[in-house]
Amino acid sequence: MKKLVIIRHGQSEWNLENRFTGWADVNLTHKGLEEASKAGETLKKEGFQFGIAYTSYLKRAIKTLWLLLEEMDQMSIPVHNTWRLNEKHYGTLTGLNKAETAEKYGDEQVKLWRRGFAISPPALELTDPRHPANDPKYKEIDPAFLPGTESLKDTINRIMPFWQDVIVPSFNSHPEILIAAHGNSLRGIVMHLKKLSEEQILEVNIPTGIPYVFELTDNLELIKDYYLADEEELKKLMNEVAAQGKAK
Amino acid sequence: MKKLVIIRHGQSEWNLENRFTGWADVNLTHKGLEEASKAGETLKKEGFQFGIAYTSYLKRAIKTLWLLLEEMDQMSIPVHNTWRLNEKHYGTLTGLNKAETAEKYGDEQVKLWRRGFAISPPALELTDPRHPANDPKYKEIDPAFLPGTESLKDTINRIMPFWQDVIVPSFNSHPEILIAAHGNSLRGIVMHLKKLSEEQILEVNIPTGIPYVFELTDNLELIKDYYLADEEELKKLMNEVAAQGKAK
Repeated sequence: MKKLVIIRHGQSEWNLENRFTGWADVNLTHKGLEEASKAGETLKKEGFQFGIAYTSYLKRAIKTLWLLLEEMDQMSIPVHNTWRLNEKHYGTLTGLNKAETAEKYGDEQVKLWRRGFAISPPALELTDPRHPANDPKYKEIDPAFLPGTESLKDTINRIMPFWQDVIVPSFNSHPEILIAAHGNSLRGIVMHLKKLSEEQILEVNIPTGIPYVFELTDNLELIKDYYLADEEELKKLMNEVAAQGKAK
Repeated sequence: MKKLVIIRHGQSEWNLENRFTGWADVNLTHKGLEEASKAGETLKKEGFQFGIAYTSYLKRAIKTLWLLLEEMDQMSIPVHNTWRLNEKHYGTLTGLNKAETAEKYGDEQVKLWRRGFAISPPALELTDPRHPANDPKYKEIDPAFLPGTESLKDTINRIMPFWQDVIVPSFNSHPEILIAAHGNSLRGIVMHLKKLSEEQILEVNIPTGIPYVFELTDNLELIKDYYLADEEELKKLMNEVAAQGKAK
């Protein structure tokens, strides 16, 4: 049997301010740091021994991973960073307050932008300082591949090649693998493993900071999936995520 | 031009207690954490942009690297962990207080064990829980390669293949490379780059937490090397390192 654990980073500064984050590289809050350590504690208690971990280029996911590995005393395992696991790119909405955007454009438009499967917000120009082509972090990536905006579909389409080409083969050497990433980037993997439709994945709200375990056959067919948290805590967290972006 | 920066981890719990550490996986002290962040600040101010970083399997070096990269806002660069960059293995001395050992065996014997080029302390048995063959961190490494004790010569002999096979080729893609490791493991690299004799390398005391820069030609011939610290601070730190292990 193989085990994949995915974890969405904990609270970031812009989660707290209810702003569209996407590829903006903001820090975790104190609460976010604590969520990460707590997840590490849980995974340690459950006896996980990860052979390799994957994360994005964004520090809120990287820091989540680091704190978690530190708590588990597994700091020396290989960590593979990839921009392909970055959050969905929110285009010109990046940095805007979600509630204000909802007031201005209406709940429905914002819901489409956030969650419409193939709908993307207006794109950042290549000259915009927020465009990843202008960020030294991405200097080794051909700018033609770097998005100025993305729909959820775009996000999933950029992630899945990495899943197929890099993560899947690594299960041959490692029975337990960890991915620390973002709400929307993780949806691609969940959609694939659970064979969900476009409509179904839109209803999946992954809570922050909770290890989400997938037990898989050696051919990576899903046996079962579950969060390492109790029912009540889980319900509360999922409602919080679903409520983000509604007008206040 | 290529640039290599090496850094020896800051103060660990056992540095503070003056105990032989080697492969024992102890934490940094609060001071050690601060040294790492300060080194990151310095390197950021100097404008370093590392393409890749190397570190050992030991958390005091890994944590030093992580804090430094966080301070530099370069958390997404690839980090390659290898047991080959671990500290010299101190065999049965592991965990013993240096001053007590010096009182018992005399300064000279301890100096030989610590610094004799080809002299190793008594070896740990394979069945000793302190032997790396019994540590899950090293489970993917053939136990035949894992030491139960080491001389400085052994340490250098285990590191240099990694230098030649992995670090050297990575300069083709990355003009600036960082290595966060240990007093003795870094000596191998210093000895090689500076073409030092066995006698000379024994007199090199790398201070903790200070970035040590090597400017190299494209063929990795040394142009010059210097610490990123002022003279006075440096002298103080080097004397501190040299004084460790003397009877008190």
